[in-house]
Amino acid sequence: MARTGGPAGPTLATVAREARVSVPTASKVVNGREDVAPETRRRVTEALDRLGYVRRPRAGGAAYPSSLVDLVLPALGSSWSGAVLHGVEAAAAEAGLEIVVSAGLTTPRGYGPGRGRLHRLAARGSAGALFSRAELTPSQYAWLEQHRIPFVLIDPLVAPPPGVAGVGADDRAGGRAATAHLLALGHRRIAFLGGPRHQLAPAARAAGHRAALTAGGVPRHPAYERHTTLAPADARREALALLALPEPPTAVHVCSDAMALAVYEAAAERGVRVPEELSVVGCDDLPESRWAAPALTTVRRPLSDMAGTALRLLVALMAADGTAALRTDLPTRLVVRASTAPPPGRAGTAPPPDRAGRLP
Amino acid sequence: MARTGGPAGPTLATVAREARVSVPTASKVVNGREDVAPETRRRVTEALDRLGYVRRPRAGGAAYPSSLVDLVLPALGSSWSGAVLHGVEAAAAEAGLEIVVSAGLTTPRGYGPGRGRLHRLAARGSAGALFSRAELTPSQYAWLEQHRIPFVLIDPLVAPPPGVAGVGADDRAGGRAATAHLLALGHRRIAFLGGPRHQLAPAARAAGHRAALTAGGVPRHPAYERHTTLAPADARREALALLALPEPPTAVHVCSDAMALAVYEAAAERGVRVPEELSVVGCDDLPESRWAAPALTTVRRPLSDMAGTALRLLVALMAADGTAALRTDLPTRLVVRASTAPPPGRAGTAPPPDRAGRLP
Repeated sequence: MARTGGPAGPTLATVAREARVSVPTASKVVNGREDVAPETRRRVTEALDRLGYVRRPRAGGAAYPSSLVDLVLPALGSSWSGAVLHGVEAAAAEAGLEIVVSAGLTTPRGYGPGRGRLHRLAARGSAGALFSRAELTPSQYAWLEQHRIPFVLIDPLVAPPPGVAGVGADDRAGGRAATAHLLALGHRRIAFLGGPRHQLAPAARAAGHRAALTAGGVPRHPAYERHTTLAPADARREALALLALPEPPTAVHVCSDAMALAVYEAAAERGVRVPEELSVVGCDDLPESRWAAPALTTVRRPLSDMAGTALRLLVALMAADGTAALRTDLPTRLVVRASTAPPPGRAGTAPPPDRAGRLP
Repeated sequence: MARTGGPAGPTLATVAREARVSVPTASKVVNGREDVAPETRRRVTEALDRLGYVRRPRAGGAAYPSSLVDLVLPALGSSWSGAVLHGVEAAAAEAGLEIVVSAGLTTPRGYGPGRGRLHRLAARGSAGALFSRAELTPSQYAWLEQHRIPFVLIDPLVAPPPGVAGVGADDRAGGRAATAHLLALGHRRIAFLGGPRHQLAPAARAAGHRAALTAGGVPRHPAYERHTTLAPADARREALALLALPEPPTAVHVCSDAMALAVYEAAAERGVRVPEELSVVGCDDLPESRWAAPALTTVRRPLSDMAGTALRLLVALMAADGTAALRTDLPTRLVVRASTAPPPGRAGTAPPPDRAGRLP
């Protein structure tokens, strides 16, 4: 946390002089302490406004409000949140910061911090915030801006407004690599099962998938591209529908490891063997993909690195006391395990079409 | 953050009166709950601002120094820490508290918070602390006492001094249940592979294992009881040694899921099939035990519940502003999956001895 050398706005001493109070008194007002006379508070508040004072933690200052950074997650306990937390905590420790972790509040449109949560964060003097897979509302963005709380989005679900920093993964390249891998194995009937269409990552992966099909000279099959919620139950239902098609796919490219494992379940239910009769590619590379049977071929999204990068970006924003229009996408990587194989009735990388019979 | 003992600011009742709402409604807003009408929330928020309300929970008469509670974990990112975090966060949200999460500091004797970490915690005015699987030193205990920071241990590695509260699991019963399950399947050559002998949980599980053997009339075999670190690599090495014995065990009772999966690896390396030639029982019931192939029979330790119980115990200590000698052990439960079966050459629950040949 670069607490040094910020381009000098007014210091607390300037504010105190302007309000004709002592520095400790001005500090009390800034820190929301209540043991200040109303008239004094009014004078200090006016001076703060007039001078455009912005809380700017300084070396040697009190550790309390300024060394705490908030991490808001949709939920805790999943390996997904564990990877994010791990990355944030390690980077925070390196920066001399501590993290306040909270989870679970939802908004009508998705996961997002409630207004009460934001109030609390400001009341405590949070030095900055990271929102993981949140979908903030315009008024929440405005509120953060107004309270001058620097923040960064980790893996934002939807495109944030201009000027908002976010760290994601290169999901288009990831989607392309997954489908290219299936094509190279000889698959031509490749389904895509993604999260909500309006979300960034599923849309980027779908675009990558389509680009790979085009590059491979394989026409798109409308019934093969499906979008659903991220809930495994929905993925299972869609997978069952895919397997029930007159000409079912021989491979499914899935948007998350959790959804891919739901596809395993659907396949088992129909007596379809993975990978002999159905190849499955996941996304994320969470620990469960390694333990699954068969071990899941997947596209690794470097969640811990994304989270650590977001923390470091936040530290930069805190130091500069401003905002920056920054979107960082970290590279993905295909991890080939045991859930992908050539399509049934075929070995290797021969061209289409493939009408070999599959047991439904 | 010395908000304690200051001249009484407005109470929540004053705020409620000012906002023309009930005290529970005002409390909901203060605690960031969502089930409040927007207009009501606005009125309460304005009243809070106008009156300069500062949260000052006073259960039992003692003031919290702040609403921040520390959770110190040995590491983040594992499903183990995810379960603990999940339990603590949910209970903290219910109590209107927030959690500062930190990880990774080790002491020469094991995992424990470094001195710097403790200083920081005190400087920030932590309301209380939870130490998960920590092995605190006498001077760390003294330091916490001296700074009057209430704390509770989650799953303490070693017995804490008298008067220190801790929440664990009934590992003796768990150990007994695991070995009784193997005996009921007809096993007589049952090995025990545990964590460090001086730690509470491995010692309790070993005691339960021995009690079950005695109850089943099966003599202890000295070469079959082994203790190692919790590192999977060590578990794998010990499992290889067990399988290399002239009379190898037909079942292994292992002290953690991670170690049990290392036993799977050792078995695979020697061409020993699980469960046909070797039954394996784990402990913890982390998500990976469900995904493992074969799915792992294990003893469930209710980690999230243990963590939530610890938080509630901490809240009680904070309210009483004192300490209590409390050790809570939550019940364990055997979860039978696919990694246990009758020993080779035998079906069901017939008595010993079993000299049926096993492929080494």
